[in-house]
Amino acid sequence: MTTIDRTRRAFSIEEAVAILERTPATLDALLRGLPETWIAGNEGDETWSSFDVVGHLIHGERTDWIPRARIILQEGEGRAFDKFDRFAQFAVSKNRPLAALLDEFASLRRENLEALKALKLTDADLDRRGRHPELGVVTLRELLSTWVAHDLDHIVQIARVLARQYSDEVGPWRAYLRIISGQQG
Amino acid sequence: MTTIDRTRRAFSIEEAVAILERTPATLDALLRGLPETWIAGNEGDETWSSFDVVGHLIHGERTDWIPRARIILQEGEGRAFDKFDRFAQFAVSKNRPLAALLDEFASLRRENLEALKALKLTDADLDRRGRHPELGVVTLRELLSTWVAHDLDHIVQIARVLARQYSDEVGPWRAYLRIISGQQG
Repeated sequence: MTTIDRTRRAFSIEEAVAILERTPATLDALLRGLPETWIAGNEGDETWSSFDVVGHLIHGERTDWIPRARIILQEGEGRAFDKFDRFAQFAVSKNRPLAALLDEFASLRRENLEALKALKLTDADLDRRGRHPELGVVTLRELLSTWVAHDLDHIVQIARVLARQYSDEVGPWRAYLRIISGQQG
Repeated sequence: MTTIDRTRRAFSIEEAVAILERTPATLDALLRGLPETWIAGNEGDETWSSFDVVGHLIHGERTDWIPRARIILQEGEGRAFDKFDRFAQFAVSKNRPLAALLDEFASLRRENLEALKALKLTDADLDRRGRHPELGVVTLRELLSTWVAHDLDHIVQIARVLARQYSDEVGPWRAYLRIISGQQG
């Protein structure tokens, strides 16, 4: 009898796209129309609100994933990726309504998934290498896997930021809520 | 000049409902139609898959939130809540497709939010107390705040379980992905 390991998947473009194409609708369902007070909530100091995270995802669509995939395919390890600006969203989002940001993210993601499809990547392409300015040599497979995990990481962040608004209000239940107690379990 | 604390909200029914009514569509957008391999992924041993989490949320709609609110309003501290069965979903979900679970969760949540509205809770009602079998005295406000945070906690769990499927595939980017490195940041 063999035991199936359900904790890991090998990367596949089809399975990755299944997540990537769902992220805009997921964020839309969670955030569109929420009272402004929820959207503006953060975790203190320079931490990000849900609004900030959507701006960050837009900036990623414009400058990170597909542009870096093209650099790998066209220039390989010879040219390091441009650095990603983790604070660009503050300019991207300024004075815009969340609904416009959600629309823009959905539209950019759709275009980028079309661009990905048009690349017709083979397994050999996925092994091709590029150079990250800090992490060093990375493969296209790692870049595309990270695109997926990065989406999910920011869904986690948004849900966590929202939940922690009620850190005091949940009273003794705090002990059972990993999202508030900080245990990731 | 005053600084607004954006890290905490006081509970309000209207704001709580704004989250609670969005959870079914959020899970639907994220999970419906995903390849089975994503849905069945877990974090090892007895940890839950996305499929298991949806079953758990269904069981909560049936036995936890509104039933406990009614116990508080009708019986106060005199009667402890029934214990919540954290493993009931394995029976609830057995051999059912995820799509059916998502439909059932959405339908139960809609009914429960109608029931909540029909209670026409006042501020004084929110201060009313009940008795949790393990946590002791709790208020109705704390119960309803926990309903919200619990939804978000399980959105976090699902996104984390999915992302960790690519723990190996992301390569060196693992260091930047809190969802995989386990730092909750």
